Amino acid sequence: MHVTSEQRLDDGILERAFTLGEIPGILWTPETASASAPAPLILLGHPPLGLRTMHPRLVDRARHAAAEGFATATIELPGSGDRPRWPAAEQARADLRRVMAAGEPVGDEIIDALVLPLVERAVPEWRAALDALLELPEIGGPVGYSGGVISIGIRLAVVEPRIAAAGLFAGSLVPRALFAEARQVTVPVHVLLQWDDEGNDRQAALDLFDALGSEEKTLHASMGGHTGVPPFAGDAAIRFFSRHLR
Amino acid sequence: MHVTSEQRLDDGILERAFTLGEIPGILWTPETASASAPAPLILLGHPPLGLRTMHPRLVDRARHAAAEGFATATIELPGSGDRPRWPAAEQARADLRRVMAAGEPVGDEIIDALVLPLVERAVPEWRAALDALLELPEIGGPVGYSGGVISIGIRLAVVEPRIAAAGLFAGSLVPRALFAEARQVTVPVHVLLQWDDEGNDRQAALDLFDALGSEEKTLHASMGGHTGVPPFAGDAAIRFFSRHLR
Repeated sequence: MHVTSEQRLDDGILERAFTLGEIPGILWTPETASASAPAPLILLGHPPLGLRTMHPRLVDRARHAAAEGFATATIELPGSGDRPRWPAAEQARADLRRVMAAGEPVGDEIIDALVLPLVERAVPEWRAALDALLELPEIGGPVGYSGGVISIGIRLAVVEPRIAAAGLFAGSLVPRALFAEARQVTVPVHVLLQWDDEGNDRQAALDLFDALGSEEKTLHASMGGHTGVPPFAGDAAIRFFSRHLR
Repeated sequence: MHVTSEQRLDDGILERAFTLGEIPGILWTPETASASAPAPLILLGHPPLGLRTMHPRLVDRARHAAAEGFATATIELPGSGDRPRWPAAEQARADLRRVMAAGEPVGDEIIDALVLPLVERAVPEWRAALDALLELPEIGGPVGYSGGVISIGIRLAVVEPRIAAAGLFAGSLVPRALFAEARQVTVPVHVLLQWDDEGNDRQAALDLFDALGSEEKTLHASMGGHTGVPPFAGDAAIRFFSRHLR
């Protein structure tokens, strides 16, 4: 992990841009974090729109988490931002745009082609990022994963034992194979659902919530579209992490 | 309103039993409530099992609310506790027990016969209780309604302008007529759903949530059965009232 730049935000949060091999990432630590009082870490998932585009929303989430004493970090997804595309993903994105423009239902083949390779590639990268981040003296476990592509969150919660709690954002482009994996999730899960999410099949989201194997799982549905998560729903997600990462 | 007994609970809450005409009720006020700093009021709804049976759970909810500065009050439902039964309701209850024991689906006629007269009778009583309670100098508005028979909560939220926020407990014995009323609800609504509620049709609960007309509505689903609402879900309901009754 190589820090490429750092700046202190106005509320005392240290924002560090880093690279992990070829992968860019960002780490935010509250000023309270130190080697003697390491901050628990929340990995910030995000949609595959590129870190530059997502930066303002990620900083908001990082500030919110830092106010409760959490460090947060994120990395660029494979095929997003400045990272190389691969032909099959480009084809799947083009297919998705085409059927959505035509108002047709999005078939399983497109979802699988779009999401499964992303999950396959991303999850080992997030685990490698976790290895590197947890070596920093001011960062401690246990670790949470929050938001982003729900299929990545589910796979990560299943395969990565350091993930102690997962806050997931209900999205409907979930490969059928991931429903079986959802049953294997055992850590506490907190799912946000935007009831009128234009890009979301509500029933699919409820089915996925039902499938999650965790003994403690909560679903918080709020009104509004995909990016309209109300502030109190964000507050509740942070309280979920406070309950489980302390 | 006639106070029949009062006692101070160990945490300084004043519990007053009262009667309003023939109707017994209970009022809990936090010690911080005074004429110069009146406490906002939350009406505590409850299932038709009688106030005596419900008392321990009601006191828990009253304590929880008092810790956040809220006064709470409840009244006996028509046909519950020591209040007179009426034949049609007794018949409907017997019919319900019979079809549930037989594992048959509960038909609309039974639901209508059971719930509609209860709503018709109860709602004017809760409004009369509100008149009386708001005359006390230590009680102020705005007023919230919390839990209990969801059809009563919906009707009250529609017809009673002093109700500024409603916390509802998703139950499935909802007459079809109430779905139309739900669309007329405009106050902020917070709905608790127990995902594996043995007495609850989950899909009906989700449909009713969808029907609610409020611009701000949130659904909090948690694992467990009817009486298994986790403490953090209760905390979230109180925070909902704190956002809207202050």
